[in-house]
Amino acid sequence: MTPTRPLAAIILAAGQGTRMKSSLHKVLHPIAGKPMVLHLLDSLKTLAPERTVVVVGARREQVETAVGGHGAQIAVQSPQLGTGHAVQQAQAALAGFDGDILILYGDAPLVSSATMARLRDALVDGVDAVVLGFHPAEPGAYGRIIADGDRIAKMVEYKDATLQERAVTLCNSGLMAVRSAALFALLARVGNANAAGEYYLPDIVGLIIGDGGIARVIETEAGEVAGVNSRGELAGLEAAWQDRRRAAAMADGVTLIDPGSVFFAHDTVIASDVTVEPFVVFGPGVRIASGTIIHGHSHIEGADIGEGCNIGPFARLRPGTRVGASARIGNFVETKKAVLGAGAKANHLTYLGDATVGAGANIGAGTITCNYDGFLKYSTNIGAGAFIGSNSALVAPVTIGDGAIVAAGSVITADVSADALALVRPAQVEKPGWAATFRRIMAARKA
Amino acid sequence: MTPTRPLAAIILAAGQGTRMKSSLHKVLHPIAGKPMVLHLLDSLKTLAPERTVVVVGARREQVETAVGGHGAQIAVQSPQLGTGHAVQQAQAALAGFDGDILILYGDAPLVSSATMARLRDALVDGVDAVVLGFHPAEPGAYGRIIADGDRIAKMVEYKDATLQERAVTLCNSGLMAVRSAALFALLARVGNANAAGEYYLPDIVGLIIGDGGIARVIETEAGEVAGVNSRGELAGLEAAWQDRRRAAAMADGVTLIDPGSVFFAHDTVIASDVTVEPFVVFGPGVRIASGTIIHGHSHIEGADIGEGCNIGPFARLRPGTRVGASARIGNFVETKKAVLGAGAKANHLTYLGDATVGAGANIGAGTITCNYDGFLKYSTNIGAGAFIGSNSALVAPVTIGDGAIVAAGSVITADVSADALALVRPAQVEKPGWAATFRRIMAARKA
Amino acid sequence: MTPTRPLAAIILAAGQGTRMKSSLHKVLHPIAGKPMVLHLLDSLKTLAPERTVVVVGARREQVETAVGGHGAQIAVQSPQLGTGHAVQQAQAALAGFDGDILILYGDAPLVSSATMARLRDALVDGVDAVVLGFHPAEPGAYGRIIADGDRIAKMVEYKDATLQERAVTLCNSGLMAVRSAALFALLARVGNANAAGEYYLPDIVGLIIGDGGIARVIETEAGEVAGVNSRGELAGLEAAWQDRRRAAAMADGVTLIDPGSVFFAHDTVIASDVTVEPFVVFGPGVRIASGTIIHGHSHIEGADIGEGCNIGPFARLRPGTRVGASARIGNFVETKKAVLGAGAKANHLTYLGDATVGAGANIGAGTITCNYDGFLKYSTNIGAGAFIGSNSALVAPVTIGDGAIVAAGSVITADVSADALALVRPAQVEKPGWAATFRRIMAARKA
Repeated sequence: MTPTRPLAAIILAAGQGTRMKSSLHKVLHPIAGKPMVLHLLDSLKTLAPERTVVVVGARREQVETAVGGHGAQIAVQSPQLGTGHAVQQAQAALAGFDGDILILYGDAPLVSSATMARLRDALVDGVDAVVLGFHPAEPGAYGRIIADGDRIAKMVEYKDATLQERAVTLCNSGLMAVRSAALFALLARVGNANAAGEYYLPDIVGLIIGDGGIARVIETEAGEVAGVNSRGELAGLEAAWQDRRRAAAMADGVTLIDPGSVFFAHDTVIASDVTVEPFVVFGPGVRIASGTIIHGHSHIEGADIGEGCNIGPFARLRPGTRVGASARIGNFVETKKAVLGAGAKANHLTYLGDATVGAGANIGAGTITCNYDGFLKYSTNIGAGAFIGSNSALVAPVTIGDGAIVAAGSVITADVSADALALVRPAQVEKPGWAATFRRIMAARKA
Repeated sequence: MTPTRPLAAIILAAGQGTRMKSSLHKVLHPIAGKPMVLHLLDSLKTLAPERTVVVVGARREQVETAVGGHGAQIAVQSPQLGTGHAVQQAQAALAGFDGDILILYGDAPLVSSATMARLRDALVDGVDAVVLGFHPAEPGAYGRIIADGDRIAKMVEYKDATLQERAVTLCNSGLMAVRSAALFALLARVGNANAAGEYYLPDIVGLIIGDGGIARVIETEAGEVAGVNSRGELAGLEAAWQDRRRAAAMADGVTLIDPGSVFFAHDTVIASDVTVEPFVVFGPGVRIASGTIIHGHSHIEGADIGEGCNIGPFARLRPGTRVGASARIGNFVETKKAVLGAGAKANHLTYLGDATVGAGANIGAGTITCNYDGFLKYSTNIGAGAFIGSNSALVAPVTIGDGAIVAAGSVITADVSADALALVRPAQVEKPGWAATFRRIMAARKA
Repeated sequence: MTPTRPLAAIILAAGQGTRMKSSLHKVLHPIAGKPMVLHLLDSLKTLAPERTVVVVGARREQVETAVGGHGAQIAVQSPQLGTGHAVQQAQAALAGFDGDILILYGDAPLVSSATMARLRDALVDGVDAVVLGFHPAEPGAYGRIIADGDRIAKMVEYKDATLQERAVTLCNSGLMAVRSAALFALLARVGNANAAGEYYLPDIVGLIIGDGGIARVIETEAGEVAGVNSRGELAGLEAAWQDRRRAAAMADGVTLIDPGSVFFAHDTVIASDVTVEPFVVFGPGVRIASGTIIHGHSHIEGADIGEGCNIGPFARLRPGTRVGASARIGNFVETKKAVLGAGAKANHLTYLGDATVGAGANIGAGTITCNYDGFLKYSTNIGAGAFIGSNSALVAPVTIGDGAIVAAGSVITADVSADALALVRPAQVEKPGWAATFRRIMAARKA
C-alpha cells in the first residue's frame, strides 16, 4: 500500500540561528558526530525520494558544502520572508516534478524514516495534506491543531487562539506532506498580513479546508520533532539521541555499566556480549565484535575491533585501526592506521601509527613507531610473534621479521631478520660516588 | 532473640535469562565488579547458614564454577517447571537438615543481610512462613499480597486478581522463609493446573492458610528486591548500588566532587578526608587512607594507598600496587605489582611493573621498567632517594642503589651502586645545515 | 539609588561542621575549586564593603590563613553560643564603623553579588532590617517568616510555630542587612532563654518589631541560600554551581556535547564556538579562545589556549601553559610552564615542562623534556619550525635552533644549531637466529 506517486523532499535550512551564537550554520552543528541536516538526508534515503531540495539562506556556502555529495539540490531564499516563502523557493528546483512532497526542517533532525513514511502514506487519494502533530510537555506558544479525529478543522497560531483553542494540546510540528501540484498553487495564495509580515506555510492548510479539501493530522512523540535553537537545545537533542542509542545497545545484549557515560556515534556497530565500562567515547566508524571489553576512559574512532579483545582503559584508537581477535590494547596506547593481528598485545604507553603488527606479537611499554619525518608518513611492519622490547623507537620505513626480538631501549633504523635479535646498546658507565657529590653541591647551591 | 534453629538457604539460579542476550548466565553478570549470585552468598555469610543450595539449570557449568569455593551445594533443575519445582530440586541436598530455610533469587542480588535476618527472625514459633513484600512504584503485573496487618489472607497472581485486589500495592518479592519440615511436604502438594503448566512456589502460602496455618508478610523497599532480566535492568541495579555506596562514602567524610561519576567496587575501603575528583573507577581490592587525593580520570584496582598521597589525574594503578604515605603517582603512569615508599614520586608517562621504589625516590618522566622478556617477569629495585632520569629504560632484573642517579635517556642493564651515577650516553653528533637541505629536497618531492 | 552609607559585612564561620567528618574547616571545602568562604569574599567585592569581618572559632587558624590576603578582619567566637553571639564578636572589629551591615554565612557560599546588593538596597530610610527569605522545596523545620506583603509581622522558629504558621512556606535564610548603630544595641538585648541556651540572631527582628520598627523581607530562590552541613550537601552545591555555569557557557555559544560531564572552575573563561567533548575538567586559571576544540578526557588548569586549537583527547595542561593559535596538543601529552607557538604540534605521549616551542615546531611522539635534576628546574627552548624526532629526550638546559631536526631516539644534551640535524645514534647490531634460540631455552625453562 506504499503510494506509487514519486516523492520529493524540501528541507528548510535558511534561518540564521542567532541564538546559537555560532559562526557555523545551525543545521551543521552535529548530533552524534553528524551534522543535523545530514541526519535528515540519511533518514530520507529509506524513502528514496526522487529529488531533495535544501533551501538555504544565511551562510549558504557552509550548508551547500555540507550537503554536497548527498544528492540534494540547493534553492536560495533571500530575503527570508517566512516558511511559506522558503518552500516557494524550491519551486524551480522541482520543475517537472509531479508527486508527493515532504516538508522537513534542518534544525529538527531526529524525525525517523518511519515517521516520514507515515506522513507520506497518510497522503492517500482524497487527502490534500497531512500535518505531523505532537503533544509537547508544555504546549506554551506552539500553534494548535483543532481536529475532529484525524481531520483538521483549523490550524491556529497561539497568539490568535481562543482560550478553548489554547486548551488543546495537539500542536503543529510544521512537518507536512502535500502534493506538488497543489503546494505551489496554494503558496501563491498565502498572504503576509500578519505582525511579522511573513508568509506562513501552515496557512495552506486553511486554504485547503476553505476550498473544501481534507487535511489530516497524524501524531508522533514530542522528542522526535524537537528543534534546536540554542546550544542548550542542541545538548538536549544529543542526550535524547544518546539515551535511545544506549537503550538499543542494551536491548541488543551490550553491557553498559554506566549507560549515561557512554557516547555513541551515529554509525557505531556493537555486538552482543560486549561490555563497555564508564567514560567511553565512540567517534564515527567503529565496529566491535562479540566478547570484547572496552575498558573505561577510552576514545575510539574509525576502528574495527575483533572478538574477545581487551581495549583500554585509556586507549585511544584512531581511524584505520583494525584489531584482530583476542588482541589487547592497553593504557595510554594510541593507534592510527594500525592493523594488529590476532592475539597481538600493545599494553602500555605506545604509539602505533602506519603500522602492521603480526599475530601474537608483543609490543613493549613505551614503544614508538616513528612514522613521520615532517613531510611524509612511512610504514612499520612487525612480524608475527615478534617481541619489541620496552622503550624502543622503530624508525619507519622498517620491517621487523617474524619472531624477531628487539632489545629494550633500541632505536631501530634498519630491518631486522626473522628470528634475529636486534639491539642498539652502548656500554653502561658508572661513576662511583658521583651522585653523593652532586647532591652536596646542589644542596649548597640551593641553600 | 536470634532463633536457635539452624538455617539453610536456597538460591534459585536456573533460569535462562534470554532477554540478557548473553552467552554468560544471567546470575553471573556483575554488579560493582562481583557476579550477582556472589552478592547473595556474601550477604548470607553474616547469617552463617549451615547449608546453601544453588539450584542451577541453563548453563549450569558456568554457575557451578562461579560459586565453587563459596561453600554452596549444587542442585540441578532440568527441565525447568517453575519456582516451586526449582525449590524441590534442593530437597536431596538438604537431606537431614532440620531448620529454617531462606529462599532467594540469583537475579535479585541486592537483598541485604539485615533483610535476610528480618525474614528469618519473623519466622517465630506459630508462624509457618514469612514472605517479603514491597510496594513497587508501578505495581503492574506483580502478584499481590492481601494481608490483614502482617498476617497474609491471600496471595494472588495479578491475572487472577479482582479489581479490588489489583488496587492493593503490596506485592510479592518471591523471597520467603519457611521451615524445612513443612517446605517439601507443601511443595509435594502444589499442582501445575495453570496456563504455563508450572509449579509456583507462592502456592505453598495458600496451602498453609488453607491448613489453618499462619503466613506473615514483612516489607522492604522496592529497590532491594529488584530483579535483573535485561541489560537495562542490570544497569539500573548497578546505578542503585553505586548511589548507595556514594552516599555512604560521603557520610563517612569522603568528598566526591561529582558523585555520579565515581564508581566503587564491592570492596572499596576509603577513609575520611579523601577527595575523589570526577571520572574515577575503582576496581576490586582498593584501600585508600586519609588525606589522599584521587585526581580525575583515574582507574585504580588492587591498590593500597597510604595517607596524604596524590594520585592522578590519568593514573592507572593495577593489582599489587602499594603506595606509601605522601607519595605521588601522576599522569599517564601505570603501576602493577609495584611498591612505592613514602614520598616517592612517579609523575609522568611511566610504567612501573614488578618494581620496588624506595622512599623519596624520583622516577623521571617516561621511565619504563622492562619487566618481561616474553616468557618471565623480572623485578626492578630502586633504592631510597634514587633519581631516575627521564626516558630511561630499566631492564630487569636490575637494582638501583640508594641515592644513585641514572642519567636521562639511559638503558640500564647492570646494577647501579648506591650513590653512583650511571649513564649510557653515546656522543651527540651535529650535521650543520642538514635539516635545511632535507627540507628543500622533501618539499620538492612533495610538490 | 545606591545608598551612600558605607557597607560592612560579617561572615559567620565559627561552626565546627561535625557532619563533614573532616579535619578541614567546613567553610574551606571548595566549590568549583574555590573555598566556600572565598566565594562570599569575592561576591562581596562588587559591593566594595569598607570592612569585612570573618567570625571564626573551631579550627580558627585554618580559616584565618585562608582568608588572609583577602582584606578581611578576624573576630574569634569562643565559646560558641549561637548566631547572635557570633555576630556580637564582630563588634570590636567594627569599632568606629557607622553604616549598613550585611550578615552572611560561610557555609552558604552561593549568594550572588546581586542578591547581596538587593538586601542592602532594600535597607532604605525607615526600614530597620531586611531579611532574605526563600521558599524551600521542603520547608521542613526552617524558621518561618510571617509577613504582610514585604513587611515582616513575626519571625518564628519551626518548633514554636502554630500549625497555621507552619503552613507558611516563606522561610528565613538567616541572611540580613541591618544598620550598625542598631545591630549591636539590639544584640545586647537578645536573651538565651531557649532549649539550647543560645543567642539567636533572628531575635533582633522581633525586638525591632516590638520597638515599632520595620523589618522587610525580600526573597530569593532556594538554591542560592543553600547551606552545606555534609559532604552530600557539598556535592549538591557543586552540582548546582556547575549546572548554572554550564547553562551560561551554552548561552554564550559554547557547545557542550554532554554538559553534565564538563566541570568548570570558578574562573574559567571560554569563548563562543568552542566545543568541549565529554569528560573534561577545568581547574583554575583557564582561558580558551574561539574555535578551539577540547576533546574528551582532558584535564586543564592554568592554561591560556589560543584560537582554533585542538586539545586532547587525554591532554593534561598544567599551570603556566600558553598555547598559540591553531596549535595541537594530543593524547597523553602533559604540559607545564610550556609556551607553544602558533601551529606547534605535540601530538602523542609527550612531556613538555619548562619549555618554549616555536611556531610550527613538531614534537614527535614520546618526547620528554628532562627539566629537573632533583634540585633545580631547567628550560628547554625549541625553535620555530624545529622537528623533534620521536622518543627523544631533551636534557635541559638546552636550545634547539629554528628549523633544526633531532633524529628519533636521541638524548640531546648540547645545543643544536638552527637548521642542523642532531643525532645520537650508536650502531644497530643484529644477532641472527638469537631469538629462536632464546625462545627454545625459555620454553624449556618454563616447562
